[in-house]
Amino acid sequence: MRVGFIGFGEAASAIAAGLSEAGLRGMAAFDSADSPALQERAQAAGVEWVNSLPELVQSVDIILSMVTAAVALPVAQAAAPYVRSGAVYADLNSCSPQTKREIGKVLEGAGCEALFACVSVMAAVPPWRHRVPMVADGPGARPLQATLSPYGMRIEVMDGPVGVSAVLKMCRSVLVKGLEALFLESLLAAESADVTDQVLKSLDASFPQVRWGEFAEYLLRRNQEHGKRRAQEMKEAALTLQGLGVEPLVTEGAAQRLEWSAKVRSQTSTTKVLPCREWLRALLSAVSSQEPTGP
Amino acid sequence: MRVGFIGFGEAASAIAAGLSEAGLRGMAAFDSADSPALQERAQAAGVEWVNSLPELVQSVDIILSMVTAAVALPVAQAAAPYVRSGAVYADLNSCSPQTKREIGKVLEGAGCEALFACVSVMAAVPPWRHRVPMVADGPGARPLQATLSPYGMRIEVMDGPVGVSAVLKMCRSVLVKGLEALFLESLLAAESADVTDQVLKSLDASFPQVRWGEFAEYLLRRNQEHGKRRAQEMKEAALTLQGLGVEPLVTEGAAQRLEWSAKVRSQTSTTKVLPCREWLRALLSAVSSQEPTGP
Repeated sequence: MRVGFIGFGEAASAIAAGLSEAGLRGMAAFDSADSPALQERAQAAGVEWVNSLPELVQSVDIILSMVTAAVALPVAQAAAPYVRSGAVYADLNSCSPQTKREIGKVLEGAGCEALFACVSVMAAVPPWRHRVPMVADGPGARPLQATLSPYGMRIEVMDGPVGVSAVLKMCRSVLVKGLEALFLESLLAAESADVTDQVLKSLDASFPQVRWGEFAEYLLRRNQEHGKRRAQEMKEAALTLQGLGVEPLVTEGAAQRLEWSAKVRSQTSTTKVLPCREWLRALLSAVSSQEPTGP
Repeated sequence: MRVGFIGFGEAASAIAAGLSEAGLRGMAAFDSADSPALQERAQAAGVEWVNSLPELVQSVDIILSMVTAAVALPVAQAAAPYVRSGAVYADLNSCSPQTKREIGKVLEGAGCEALFACVSVMAAVPPWRHRVPMVADGPGARPLQATLSPYGMRIEVMDGPVGVSAVLKMCRSVLVKGLEALFLESLLAAESADVTDQVLKSLDASFPQVRWGEFAEYLLRRNQEHGKRRAQEMKEAALTLQGLGVEPLVTEGAAQRLEWSAKVRSQTSTTKVLPCREWLRALLSAVSSQEPTGP
């Protein structure tokens, strides 16, 4: 049994390294960003480096697509003609359920008799590696679970229509990334009047269980580290809501706020992750020199 | 020393009742909605009922304006010519800091030598009554504190420009009411796919301290009870952010979401407060029969 990764970024390589330590052999990877650094990372995790997508797909029984939400569908279209009969094609990208269902249809349409698994990764991969909680649905979900849980992967299978686990993940995203955008927006205003600490203290007095100060530090650190990706995921979440008939009023505003902060971040020279209030002050100096993307 | 309430709604009457129990005598109230129910409530709290705004204002040393954000400024304009020299005019409404500063200017301009106190009420009044945490600024803040804290009122005085406590309160509002709107929007989508419990469970797994299920119940209960007022306050918060140079991207979306839910609530015949998931289902049936206010 061979497992192939399409895309070998931070998340895929963390999962591969974990699976390798857990005793899984026969892994392979392809990444269109074919850099020596990626190849070294693969080698370190005992993963064979493959030079083309067809070559990878033809040689494995379980395909884990870990690219980005934006290219998940075209990658599936490119891979489908080469998928082995009976193989599992698992899409682990943060796509909307609509996109997940389209990927499922692409695989059905290719006539390869592959089993599609819509997989939703429910937490940040790096600290958890292959043990990151996942929720899966679709015809490939149970075979995927049966094959990989002996190596410590935690795949919960959900019954329901294909894509239901993506709905779950997107609704979760709306809350977590929405909260990040809310913290940004509220504390930008607070910091401009020098009352950030008082705002957090006042919230702690009302809802002590939340531990607002810690939460703000955590979310605004992730905002700096993964801002661009998180903004894109929030756009996907907005599409998901629209597909479900819920107008993404707050979600769209939050996506714009995250896009804006990612843009400011990309314009700063530093890669250092700043403490919450310093990041707010850096953003405030951007506010005074440029307008955020308005609705 | 006499204390006068302009406006005698739920919050004002709860504070008056608490102060009366704490031994404060000589309270009076005026409310333009001059109903027998309000008068009875005043009588029960030992508060003298006064039939006109000038009459009230002329007869007291401390004025607590507890009307609504929308009429706080016109009420101050109507009251200013009658305020006693040296009296404290405390505005306790949830106005933007800009409006608070305008009220301060109205009092200055009236030449009555009254002291303006910008007061921000930091929690829901009813459970706390007169002991609800307040933050105050402006020239009347310390006299107000000195006069009323012996009766158990908790007024924290903030240094800084007039209106700074309103900035604090509005930034807090953006987070709490934004979270209410986020929960609504995310869980509407979740409930439509029947995954509400899974979304909350998944969030609890990542951020157990927040206790998401309880928080959702709390916020969605308040959404039903005070939706309209909360939507208006979120509009004020959006104005506050704009005044501080921060585009209210998320805040504006949240205000629209809260307005929409308040509208749906006003169209239902029930006054019963529903559990979270029942309220979501009631909102979903409204989604399918009407469009929410788009951006």
